[in-house]
Amino acid sequence: MGVGDDAALVALSPGHELVITTDMLVAGTHFFADTDAQDLGHKALAVNLSDLAAMGAKPRWVTLALSLPQVDQVWLEAFAGGFFGLAEGYEVDLVGGDTTRGPLNICVTALGEAPAGRALLRSAARAGDDIWVSGNLGEAALGLAALEGRVSLDDRTRDHCLERLHRPVPRVSLGLALRDLANAAIDVSDGLLADLGHIVERSNMGAEIELVRLPRSASLAGCGDAALAEQCLLGGGDDYELCFTAGPQKRSALATLAARLGLPLTRIGRMVGDREIRVRLLDASANEYVPTHRGFDHFASGEK
Amino acid sequence: MGVGDDAALVALSPGHELVITTDMLVAGTHFFADTDAQDLGHKALAVNLSDLAAMGAKPRWVTLALSLPQVDQVWLEAFAGGFFGLAEGYEVDLVGGDTTRGPLNICVTALGEAPAGRALLRSAARAGDDIWVSGNLGEAALGLAALEGRVSLDDRTRDHCLERLHRPVPRVSLGLALRDLANAAIDVSDGLLADLGHIVERSNMGAEIELVRLPRSASLAGCGDAALAEQCLLGGGDDYELCFTAGPQKRSALATLAARLGLPLTRIGRMVGDREIRVRLLDASANEYVPTHRGFDHFASGEK
Repeated sequence: MGVGDDAALVALSPGHELVITTDMLVAGTHFFADTDAQDLGHKALAVNLSDLAAMGAKPRWVTLALSLPQVDQVWLEAFAGGFFGLAEGYEVDLVGGDTTRGPLNICVTALGEAPAGRALLRSAARAGDDIWVSGNLGEAALGLAALEGRVSLDDRTRDHCLERLHRPVPRVSLGLALRDLANAAIDVSDGLLADLGHIVERSNMGAEIELVRLPRSASLAGCGDAALAEQCLLGGGDDYELCFTAGPQKRSALATLAARLGLPLTRIGRMVGDREIRVRLLDASANEYVPTHRGFDHFASGEK
Repeated sequence: MGVGDDAALVALSPGHELVITTDMLVAGTHFFADTDAQDLGHKALAVNLSDLAAMGAKPRWVTLALSLPQVDQVWLEAFAGGFFGLAEGYEVDLVGGDTTRGPLNICVTALGEAPAGRALLRSAARAGDDIWVSGNLGEAALGLAALEGRVSLDDRTRDHCLERLHRPVPRVSLGLALRDLANAAIDVSDGLLADLGHIVERSNMGAEIELVRLPRSASLAGCGDAALAEQCLLGGGDDYELCFTAGPQKRSALATLAARLGLPLTRIGRMVGDREIRVRLLDASANEYVPTHRGFDHFASGEK
């Protein structure tokens, strides 16, 4: 039915449940007002598809509400290009829209579906599960640091990191495949420690991460600022990779999946029954490692 | 499941389709920045529930994204009071939320369900159908005119019209009952002529309205400005009444329904096969009446 009636009318696949997520992006808060419109269109949808991917849901429909200071046809076409370019790639239909005058604000609600009882939850990790991440972490945060003048990168690295910041790739195919392999999942939008912290909290157990196993991109390794690189790796948001847990018997299946998707999947640690440790980092000697960046304090174990 | 995972997970009733609508309300565009927060919370949800009502859908879930200049606990509590007060009345669950810093902006997506193939559409009117409206029209617009100093009302009338403007009652029960009685429906958010125009256009036929039949409230009749009263009646938005079409054989059932709901339902005209007339107004002598307000020109019949 689509847009045109008071509301859109759609049918879920039989035996499926509905998965719903919403995000609002505001100029000056979530992005610079002069951010490329095509990138914005892409990212506004990508962050929502990433939430669906983390649930193992197939994206189906999306609504878009847009507030703009003035009608700017060039801007709108570029925005639409980014938005629909991504939507078409995943066969996501726009089923509701609202465009209005006001300070630049983008609100997207994405709807997906998953077979009943099969969606991935943050709460379903089991003690003994391996902890995995897709791709690599921290490049989007490194790109933001470069934009803000906190680090100087060579042109090629800078372009790559800004691409990751502005045009994240939602891990939709991975999320769908993980329905059969993973127990719990989340997307890394606020940083690995923070997001793994949600799995730990909701699953009511602890996590041990082996620092040496974390996938370090060449961008981070070569940025010349070790403290910043660690901050990006452990706390950098906006990568929209998936962090998930799976039983050890799934290792070979996950290796096969990584090869099929052309997307590295890295085992970085394991879930443990001791919830008091929360997310504990271990160095190469299996000793606890406390990150230097103060913002991570509340994710480390301790007496708090 | 609700809020807390990357996305919410819900189940539709078996045999039902999903109905989706979204609206963005922006300070300075849709409401005055100093509008009472409780009223805003109410209205932000009400306008979306009204869209679902016009589809004959039962409201089930809602997402709320809110951008605020600063955290203001008093404002937030009042807003939540209005929003959840209405949500609870219709057993609507909040399943997704996003609160962020920025210029005041409220984006709501409402989800409902209707038995497959039973939703009410704008396109399903039939020639010979009666045209009906619920309640009365124009009081919200009269309230806005009073707010803007374009008319002076006695205190009691002013309070009543502002209540209609700020706290519209979505006609949810009516919409549900109309599944069995109406052919096409729409909510009156942009004014009777504009909204009936959508039914006319989508159903590919014309509409004749008998002016004398239109429900005129005491507020409009007594406002002392006949031109403004006509403008409110024919073009006033924000009333969120339903306009619908139904076969003449449904008249007694609709009278019974009106009594059961305690909500007047008024027959105001009929759908005709001649699509060229679009929405034609007829005076007491069945002659065409052309409204004085220029903004209605494009809804009248003519050579355009």
